[in-house]
Amino acid sequence: MTAFDRIALGETRELGAHLFTANEITRFAAAYDPQPFHLDEEAGAQSLFGGLCASGWHTAAVMMRAFVDFIGRETELAKRRGEVPLRYGVSPGFDDLKWLKPVYPGDTITFTGEVTAKRRSKSRPGWGILTLATRGTNQKGEPVFAVTSHLFVATEEGAQGAFTDRD
Amino acid sequence: MTAFDRIALGETRELGAHLFTANEITRFAAAYDPQPFHLDEEAGAQSLFGGLCASGWHTAAVMMRAFVDFIGRETELAKRRGEVPLRYGVSPGFDDLKWLKPVYPGDTITFTGEVTAKRRSKSRPGWGILTLATRGTNQKGEPVFAVTSHLFVATEEGAQGAFTDRD
Repeated sequence: MTAFDRIALGETRELGAHLFTANEITRFAAAYDPQPFHLDEEAGAQSLFGGLCASGWHTAAVMMRAFVDFIGRETELAKRRGEVPLRYGVSPGFDDLKWLKPVYPGDTITFTGEVTAKRRSKSRPGWGILTLATRGTNQKGEPVFAVTSHLFVATEEGAQGAFTDRD
Repeated sequence: MTAFDRIALGETRELGAHLFTANEITRFAAAYDPQPFHLDEEAGAQSLFGGLCASGWHTAAVMMRAFVDFIGRETELAKRRGEVPLRYGVSPGFDDLKWLKPVYPGDTITFTGEVTAKRRSKSRPGWGILTLATRGTNQKGEPVFAVTSHLFVATEEGAQGAFTDRD
């Protein structure tokens, strides 16, 4: 049974959790999203968000970090079990990126991924496409972030993957 | 005529251009996407990308920065013309995020936005939703990045906007 065959449809995994700090929020915003409510507590308090909050692209980037760390841990675990780890290729894209509530300093966001689809690629022998409903939830249990992630994964151990374009 | 009324369907605007450096690419990746081909030239050369390249989320974040700067310039220009500037609210989400080619150090990516839809919100009086086909193109004219952006914009000058959830 390959790593691709072992992926269970409907399975939800915790990818990781991250505590957002004011310093990290403002540093990201200064570089990539310098809107007042992402830069300054006072400006945030006067905005519709009611306080300093993270750029939505910051939350998305932290989700990616959680996912990369998750893959690293899963790869190690598979090796320890004597299995060939699931091998990831590029992403053919992400859909339905949504910021459902603001992320404030002190919030801990837990990211999860649910396997909603897996299929073999029609044009890339040895590769498949995995679809994950990826979600971020704050410490109150409120959904704050959602995106549908599509990822190339190897279906055969020796799959060659010198591609960067879409399926 | 309001700023919302002045938005022309089909209009494409240049949002801005950005030169990606190796230092910026590896700094973003170390924080948010620590995969070897985003961190190290040698690892990039041995990867399917053929060289160090930017995290897709880095490219997306740089697009956001270009967009924020564009809005700042547009707001200033409107004021100088004696017009009320278009006022932006939160985003109800982004769709179809795609990384079409790698972004390498030394690449200059030009971001554009084409207005593909505008409509009045059914549930938010005084607000509308603008849809932009947002694209990134490298110095060779190759598309490298695409996303469909949805943005709340005020349709009336005095619109109140204390909302963060979706339409």
